[in-house]
Formats: sequence, C-alpha cells, structure tokens
Amino acid sequence: MADIATRVHNHKWKIDPIVRSLIDTDFYKLLMCQSVFRNKPDTNVTFSLINRTKTIRLAELVDEGELREQLDHIRTLRLSRGESTFLRGNTFYGKRQMFRPDFMEWFEGMQLPPYHLEKRDGQYELTFEGKWPEVMLWEIPALAVLMELRSRAVLERLGRFEIQVLYARAMTKLWEKIERLRQIDGLKIADFGTRRRHSFLWQDWCVQAMQEGLGPKFIGTSNCLIALRHEVEAIGTNAHELPMVYSALARDDAELAQAPYQVLADWHEEHDGNLRIILPDTFGTEGFLSRAPDWLTTWTGIRIDSGDPATGAETAIRWWQSRGEDPRQKLVIFSDGLDVGKIEELHRQFTGRVKVSFGWGTMLTNDFRGLVPDDGLAPFSLVCKAVSANGRPTVKLSDNPNKAMGPADQIARYKRVFGVGDQAAVEVVV
Amino acid sequence: MADIATRVHNHKWKIDPIVRSLIDTDFYKLLMCQSVFRNKPDTNVTFSLINRTKTIRLAELVDEGELREQLDHIRTLRLSRGESTFLRGNTFYGKRQMFRPDFMEWFEGMQLPPYHLEKRDGQYELTFEGKWPEVMLWEIPALAVLMELRSRAVLERLGRFEIQVLYARAMTKLWEKIERLRQIDGLKIADFGTRRRHSFLWQDWCVQAMQEGLGPKFIGTSNCLIALRHEVEAIGTNAHELPMVYSALARDDAELAQAPYQVLADWHEEHDGNLRIILPDTFGTEGFLSRAPDWLTTWTGIRIDSGDPATGAETAIRWWQSRGEDPRQKLVIFSDGLDVGKIEELHRQFTGRVKVSFGWGTMLTNDFRGLVPDDGLAPFSLVCKAVSANGRPTVKLSDNPNKAMGPADQIARYKRVFGVGDQAAVEVVV
Repeated sequence: MADIATRVHNHKWKIDPIVRSLIDTDFYKLLMCQSVFRNKPDTNVTFSLINRTKTIRLAELVDEGELREQLDHIRTLRLSRGESTFLRGNTFYGKRQMFRPDFMEWFEGMQLPPYHLEKRDGQYELTFEGKWPEVMLWEIPALAVLMELRSRAVLERLGRFEIQVLYARAMTKLWEKIERLRQIDGLKIADFGTRRRHSFLWQDWCVQAMQEGLGPKFIGTSNCLIALRHEVEAIGTNAHELPMVYSALARDDAELAQAPYQVLADWHEEHDGNLRIILPDTFGTEGFLSRAPDWLTTWTGIRIDSGDPATGAETAIRWWQSRGEDPRQKLVIFSDGLDVGKIEELHRQFTGRVKVSFGWGTMLTNDFRGLVPDDGLAPFSLVCKAVSANGRPTVKLSDNPNKAMGPADQIARYKRVFGVGDQAAVEVVV
Repeated sequence: MADIATRVHNHKWKIDPIVRSLIDTDFYKLLMCQSVFRNKPDTNVTFSLINRTKTIRLAELVDEGELREQLDHIRTLRLSRGESTFLRGNTFYGKRQMFRPDFMEWFEGMQLPPYHLEKRDGQYELTFEGKWPEVMLWEIPALAVLMELRSRAVLERLGRFEIQVLYARAMTKLWEKIERLRQIDGLKIADFGTRRRHSFLWQDWCVQAMQEGLGPKFIGTSNCLIALRHEVEAIGTNAHELPMVYSALARDDAELAQAPYQVLADWHEEHDGNLRIILPDTFGTEGFLSRAPDWLTTWTGIRIDSGDPATGAETAIRWWQSRGEDPRQKLVIFSDGLDVGKIEELHRQFTGRVKVSFGWGTMLTNDFRGLVPDDGLAPFSLVCKAVSANGRPTVKLSDNPNKAMGPADQIARYKRVFGVGDQAAVEVVV
C-alpha cells in the first residue's frame, strides 16, 4: 500500500535538499566556531571554494540553477530545537556543556551569510564573506553540496538497475574494507568523511556499516547530525583555518612567528584531555615542533594531516622524546590520504610506540573509483578555505608543497619566518 | 512518515508466505498439466522430494513447523481472477487461448492435494499422492519453499548490514554475469530458475536485472507470475515427468519402448512451432533419437538437459543430418548446469550450425556461492519427481548415470529396453 499522503507531500518539494540541517557539518567546525566566537568574533574573512582537480569541470557538470537552489536552501536553515538540545545537553569528549550558553544563543539565531557565485573556465568561483564565526560554517555544506550535485549529475545517465548495482558494488567495496579493518587488534577509527562524501545518505550508510562491522573499534563520526541520529560520538578538534587566520592577522614577522602558538594557547585555555591535539603542519611540522613552548609537549597528541604520515609520526615521537615526554602516552591521529592498506601499515608501524587513531575521510565516504564508465564518480580534491582575513591574504604551507596555498610573495615570507626548507612533494589525490 | 495501517497490517501475518500464487510456478508445468488433464487425467501418481545433496541436512536446518505452515498456506491458494484472465487471454508463444476453457475451469477450482511429511536421517521425506494433474502442480512450490526456508535459516544468523552486503554482493555478481552476456551477439536466453531460486524476491530481481541489462537478448522467464507482473514472455515446453509416467504405465516392454514417443505424439497433436521441442534424454538421447519416428525430425528443436551439453548438441546435429534435415533451421536449447562461461562456450561452438538458446536456471537465481561462511547459501540439488504412477515405479536414466533414479531392477530393465550402454558420469552440482 502506498502512503498517499507521503507521496503527495514528496511532490511538493521544489528540490531534494542535500544539506537539511546546520549540524550536518563537522564537529570541529562547531568547536572552532565557539573558539572564534569567543576570541576573534569581529574578524572579517573570505572563504573560497577551490577545485584542485582541474580536469573535473564542475561548472559544465553541475547546473548553476540547481547549485543556487541548494545554496539558497542552506541559507533558510536554522538550528532546530532538538539539535540545540543535543548540542547543549550531550556529552562530547566526556564533557557536558561543551558549548556554552552564550555561544548556543548566538548559534540558535544564526543564518548563513550570502554567497557569491560565478563561473570561470569551467569552474565555479564560490566565495563567502563576512564575520568569521558565520562564514566558517559555510565550508562543509558548500563542499557537500558540490560533491553531491556532481554525483547526481553522473547518476542521471544511469538506468535503475545500473544504479542499484552501482550502490551494491560500493557497499561491497566498503564492507570488504571493514572486514579487513576488523582484523586489526586495538584499532581506533573515526569517520572524517563529511566534506568529500558521495552523498548524505551514503555517508549515513557508511557510518552505520562501520558501527555494525567494527563495533567498539569504530569510535565515532565527525558529522554532528549523524552522531545525533545514531547516538555515536562526535569526533574532531581543530583545523588549519585557525593558524591561517591568526597568522594573516599578525602585524609583523614576530607576531606571525607566534601566531600558530597563540591559536593553541587560546585552545589550551578552553579544552583539555583528548581535545588537546596539535595540528602542527600548517607552516611545516619540523619548525613548528622545534620552536614549540614546553606547555605544548604536555598536550594529549598530534594530528598528522599532510606529507608522508610515517615521517610525520616519527618527527612527533622524536620531539616528545627530546622534551622528556613518553611517546607511549601520546596519541597520534592520522587523517590524510588514508585507505585500508595505509591504515594497516601505519597501525603495524606505530602500535606500541604511541597510541594510534585514524580519521578516515574520502576513501570511507566516497570510494566510487572504478564503478562507472570514465570513472565519473571518482572522488576529487575540492576544498573550501579561508583565503583572507581583514583584507590580508592567508597562507598554508603544510608538509606537502602540492598543498601549499596563498600569494607567492606571502608563501616566500612564511617560509622564511617559519624556517621551511625543501619539502618532499606527495601527490594529492583527494 | 510510516504508513501506520501498513505496519499494523503486516503484524497480522501469521507467516511470511513464500509462495503466494498458484502461477508462481514454471510455465511448462501448466502446459504439461493441460496435456495430462486431457490425456491421462485419472492417473494416480506419487511425487517425492529428493535432496541429492546429502551433506545438507535439511531437517536440521529447517524447522518442521515452519515448513508445514508454508505448505499449508500453499494449499489455501486458489487461482485469482487476474491470474485466470492472464492465462486465458495472454498470448503464449504467439498463440491466444493456449489454455482451453475446460482446463481453465478446472484450474480455477483446483486446490493442491494434501502432503505427507516425515523426517528421516536429517532429511525431510515429503510426498504428494493423488491425481496426476493436481499432484504435479506441487513440484515447483514444494521446491521453492524448501529452498527459501533454507535461505532464511542461514540468513537468520546475520546482522542487518551483513544481510545488505550479502545482497549487494549477489547483485554485483549477477550484474557482472549480465555484463558478460551482453557482449554475446545474437544471444537468446531465458530464466529457468524458479525451482532452485534463493527466494521469490531474488528471482524477481534477477528477471528485472536481465530485462534492463540484456534487453531483447532476454527472451523471457519460466515463472508465470513474474511473466505476468513484468509483462515478459512465459517460456517452457515439457519435462521428464511425461515420459517417466507414460513409461511407468506401459504394460510390457513393447509399450515401454513406445511410451516416450507416445508422449510426443500427444504433444504433436496439441502444439506446434516453438513448443515442439524434443527432450530426448529421459532414457538416453542416442537410442531415443536413432529409433525416433520421422515426424519427430520435423519438430522445431531439442532441449539438452543432461550429460555433456556439446556432445548432446552434436548428437542432435548428426541425427538431423542423417534424417535429411538442415540443422541450421533447428533450435537447440541448453538448460543444464549453465553458467556464463559455459554459455559463452556453447554459443561460440554452435552459433551458425544451429539456432541456439539458453534456459538459465540455478546459477541465475541462486548463485550465492562463497557469500557466507561455510558456503551456507550455496545452491544444492533438490528435486521433486514423480516416483510412481498407478502403483508402478518410475525410472529416469538421463545422459548422466549420476542423475539416474528408480529401483535398480527397473533401471536395468529400462537400460535393456532402450539400449543404453555405458554412460559418462558428470558431477551433478545443482
């Protein structure tokens, strides 16, 4: 029996919205948002969407009208009562009231600011300008919308059974990965795949499959909405945008050299335990660690997000040892370019030497490689970054020159200030 | 929104019925039933379920109470008005009114006769006794019920995502077969998989996948209910039970020697065109063809259902040539032990020499090999055969001694009467 009312109601949707909630975003975005709301609320920033995979001509694949409808829909979203209750009342990282009442009140009234959209050279130029705490919340939904509209554009051409078999293949592929991960004793792994997911429903499926397949080895998801719905832990700490914006705001080289530490000093004041995770690579890991103040060595762990991950972990271990810390008490979170083989390898290599954990992104929620002709659903490298703060350009170096961004003269300046020499290039897949 | 009424209604089912329609059966069963109804309506027969795969202890896997509930449910079924309209009004093999009014009237009032069920040595002994036209209609539903209850028993142990991935794998597996079959120029293939299907819903999916994936290369299904629902051709002609019962009724060796030809003489009177398909292997193909009357050489084709299929086809070709027929005008239907590799091979070998067609059974609708631990869902060899007629045992020799059935003394007698010498044994997988 068809539910007539449901069918009729479904016909009333003008669009099939991709992002339906303000908390369909990464948990660390909300943590960072609260930090920015507290420490730098009036900073003006510009975020910009950048497709690093130039061969995928998004503006030719994705209809501009549909893109605008999706973005406009996101601007209509408000935090719902249940979502607010969840953020206010849930335990995150073992702590109640992670989000303070003043922040929650602001968030409950917040609407995402306008966007600017243009087409150029087969790509979309999508930018967001305004107060940092608002603009920063565009990052994840903007990425999710473009990723999913691209998926839809490709799926449009397939027949009904082709679509079903496509998902059957994708499910099988993920399950085979889960079956391999299940073999790893002591594995701790989280979903970090919101930003580059194939679609919302697919990420939702992936998280549930990880729950059933890995049991307690699956420690949570970065996606707050999915964490709420399936009662799993919301996972995440902080990201490059904090040091990038703090650094852009520095008035001279001396302030610039201190800016990344100032980020963590603000964080140190607010968070403890497993939320004290260093992200050291924004302007080169080596220099960042060697010049780090001693209080940073007491932090719980480090997240390795660019460059060769084993090299990054070895650097961290040597640093802890040089500062008299026991690496076996420290947590290393790998979150860049992971797939099962790499996870197995890193786990084998570092278990017993440090505590190991994984934030698994694109190859969890978007491994559609090889599943349609011309590989039209393979994931690609789309990012949405703070490109300026109070009118000054931001810079990111990372441990991989292929991930560097910013004006050339500023990149040179940052390299000088942070003492970054030659770096090994690693191919950026996603 | 949940449809409350549907949910409440679903709770009222005492069981989830496996067979829900009297036409959820093979088309040739109905054709044969009409022939029997016309020519031998008062024959008393016994059909018996035989599990040729002794390692699968069905009575330990499948609960007797559940089996009885399913069989009892089948006895409550009556031909529905829509089903009757379909059988009366649809075109089968290009012919209207394939089923005559007197047969349809009988069928509309028919209920399947009682069954006898016992357990012995970990197996079920399931037998049906009564008038041939009624009892014969138990074969397919009885097989389908046991196959699906066995599937359910194994699926019972799996988690929700394990089940979803299991079907994802099975779908992928079938689709990969379809993608290979699609490459074969001039392929003609039908679904013959009702009797040993994994489940009804799965067969239904397989047929739809074949429709979308193969287009006109997919020529139909043996399952009448699925043919009705998806408006595809119902396919099938006749089976071993006709010569087996006719032969059991023979009063002496001379009548026995003629019995298989008498079956086809009755058929000849009733059907023409693509329904005139010889099934030559019941008591050995070689002898059957060499002694066949000339009018049989004018028949449209032959179905190869046991022994090495290429050998069977070569035998048929030589026979047609020896009788002055042009094999290129003849149809060879392969229907035994097929999977994609064998289909490709036979198609390559015989295209251009004869018209080739395939009736694909178990490996279409039940290829769950390798998909669960201990291969618990692999198909197995379950049959339901006429074992006696008017109190006399039936015999089947076929072209494979591993498929022979009947009392040893009768097998010896039949071998003598039909001049069957040494036969090459072929492993019976399903």
